[in-house]
Amino acid sequence: MTAPRYTDLVVSLPATVPFVGPEALTRERGRPFRARLGANESGFGPAPSAIAAMQDAAGDAWMYGDSECFELRRALAAHHGVAAENILVGEGIDGLLGNLVRVMVAPGDAVVTSDGAYPTFNYHVAGFGGVLHKVPYRDDHEDPSALLTRAEDLSAKLLYFCNPDNPMGSWHSARIVQRMIDAVPDGTLMVLDEAYADAAPDGTAPPIDPGDTRVIRMRTFSKLYGLAGLRVGYAIGAAPLIAMFDRVRNHFGVGRLVQTGALAALRDQAWLRHVQAEVAAARDGLREIAAGHGLHALPSATNFVTIDCGRDGDFARELVAALRERDVFVRMPGVAPMDRCIRVSTGPQEELDIFDDALGACLRALG
Amino acid sequence: MTAPRYTDLVVSLPATVPFVGPEALTRERGRPFRARLGANESGFGPAPSAIAAMQDAAGDAWMYGDSECFELRRALAAHHGVAAENILVGEGIDGLLGNLVRVMVAPGDAVVTSDGAYPTFNYHVAGFGGVLHKVPYRDDHEDPSALLTRAEDLSAKLLYFCNPDNPMGSWHSARIVQRMIDAVPDGTLMVLDEAYADAAPDGTAPPIDPGDTRVIRMRTFSKLYGLAGLRVGYAIGAAPLIAMFDRVRNHFGVGRLVQTGALAALRDQAWLRHVQAEVAAARDGLREIAAGHGLHALPSATNFVTIDCGRDGDFARELVAALRERDVFVRMPGVAPMDRCIRVSTGPQEELDIFDDALGACLRALG
Repeated sequence: MTAPRYTDLVVSLPATVPFVGPEALTRERGRPFRARLGANESGFGPAPSAIAAMQDAAGDAWMYGDSECFELRRALAAHHGVAAENILVGEGIDGLLGNLVRVMVAPGDAVVTSDGAYPTFNYHVAGFGGVLHKVPYRDDHEDPSALLTRAEDLSAKLLYFCNPDNPMGSWHSARIVQRMIDAVPDGTLMVLDEAYADAAPDGTAPPIDPGDTRVIRMRTFSKLYGLAGLRVGYAIGAAPLIAMFDRVRNHFGVGRLVQTGALAALRDQAWLRHVQAEVAAARDGLREIAAGHGLHALPSATNFVTIDCGRDGDFARELVAALRERDVFVRMPGVAPMDRCIRVSTGPQEELDIFDDALGACLRALG
Repeated sequence: MTAPRYTDLVVSLPATVPFVGPEALTRERGRPFRARLGANESGFGPAPSAIAAMQDAAGDAWMYGDSECFELRRALAAHHGVAAENILVGEGIDGLLGNLVRVMVAPGDAVVTSDGAYPTFNYHVAGFGGVLHKVPYRDDHEDPSALLTRAEDLSAKLLYFCNPDNPMGSWHSARIVQRMIDAVPDGTLMVLDEAYADAAPDGTAPPIDPGDTRVIRMRTFSKLYGLAGLRVGYAIGAAPLIAMFDRVRNHFGVGRLVQTGALAALRDQAWLRHVQAEVAAARDGLREIAAGHGLHALPSATNFVTIDCGRDGDFARELVAALRERDVFVRMPGVAPMDRCIRVSTGPQEELDIFDDALGACLRALG
């Protein structure tokens, strides 16, 4: 017996995973978190109508889901004013990014992103042998001009841009994003990750032009729709690009209950507006909490607030660890100089209060 | 604006999909099926305890699922007498096969399967640039000896073997399968797809040796557990092989409700035994129906019965089409000489009765 003959590519990949989830952290710690504010989930919950729809559908789980996600795609198309052929439903933005990289990136191909942006995108690029090129943030924002220049210089296959941004919460206006789309170099596809668009002010997401072959946009039910546990997101793009995914995707990978829950959530825009108001109020609350401890909260167009701790990355890492000791789950940017900050998800007032108390205690303890 | 620069590999792939699902067929037809007996789903339903568990968990859907599927893996490990490190939970066997091919098969690598076996496996092999080599069935069974010889001759990376077999329902005894595992050529990994093992007689699945690096086994909750709509399966294999998937998989791809439903189903072995009895009775029922129409049902160790229609593939294709006209959904093998058969899933008596009537009418109409 010998070990299986893995591909050279997979052998070359690191064994690390992009994120250690809250459940894994809970097992390591041996006790649950009192405040779950680290994964940008929606502690305000999914729409009661979506919960009821999933409960009603549970007995139908013996049937495969629709491999074409027909009803959900049709509803999403109507919601965004595009055709169903412009919509691809997938296993969260993570799953969509994986398949996107697969159809676009061959070993050695150049891909451009920002240094400190979404690790799971980087994971997929590495996983298909792409070569990542990272452009620094500028004043805690992704830098459109520098990203475009780098993509042009490298003739990059993909250019990743997250607006509003994770992990900084910053954003560019629709006008700047549209200008960026218009300037995407020939032969480069822009990946516009709009996971947090539902939390952003009007005028952040540019209008959708479904015929534009230069950009593919990513949206999700994991954030303000409160359905992270379903793992469902969607891409919006030109029909030929969307069709290309049919050659590689797991066709029955989006299950029946998932489609039911997402469709019900989409139909309940009143709940989305309710959550948007809760998120806005919680952002204000987090800003006040930060100020109360002498820290500065960065402006946010997302469902989290990034708080500048005023010192270096080592201090912020110690603070995140100390908060976890006090059963508060938050995360932080991984790259300097943004790693002077911690990233705190919005959530119910009780959890913000727990964070407030723990933050004060931790800051005193760390001195 | 130019078209995106897809990889050469993806451009070379066909735009066809492995299966058109029942919902898509229903839309084409414009009316629902009266008997849904084509996808080997379990019309006997999931365990009521699993339905209740999913309903209870629906409100928690705002939280990402555990990226490590810890509880489910632990329970599966205990169930099979292996360690959690030997278990990989994934997005159905389809999803697991995709990732398996990805970690094993580079463009040009040889892969061996049977001619007429699972199309979705073939889809994934093509999708990663592998070169498929197909060995004929022998007397409606996969042919272990010929498969081994071909794998050895080609120094194949993967050797796919489904036991009990889909689409024929035939099976080899555990003794033969174990002998096959023992004879796997050095450098080849055997993929033992046991999706239908829960429907097979004792002595079909060989004992699991978690240290054996020559084989990876695939199981699913989609068949007798009645949870096809959740899209969850698992692989059992040597720990280093299982760990390799962490380098490529969608870590949060198995959602929270999915894990909850599967765990509850696994714990309800009484329901599984109930379904096994229903499946056995329905197989007998389908055999009698076939005989009543002068057709021969092949012996089956699965949750479907493959019926020899006694004529050629064109006739069987016409019969499948005629049955769909009468709102009965069945499928059939795609390759001669097995395509003289149709494949009918077990299901509730009402649906078998509908099939019985429709079959008689169709046979009369086709003459």
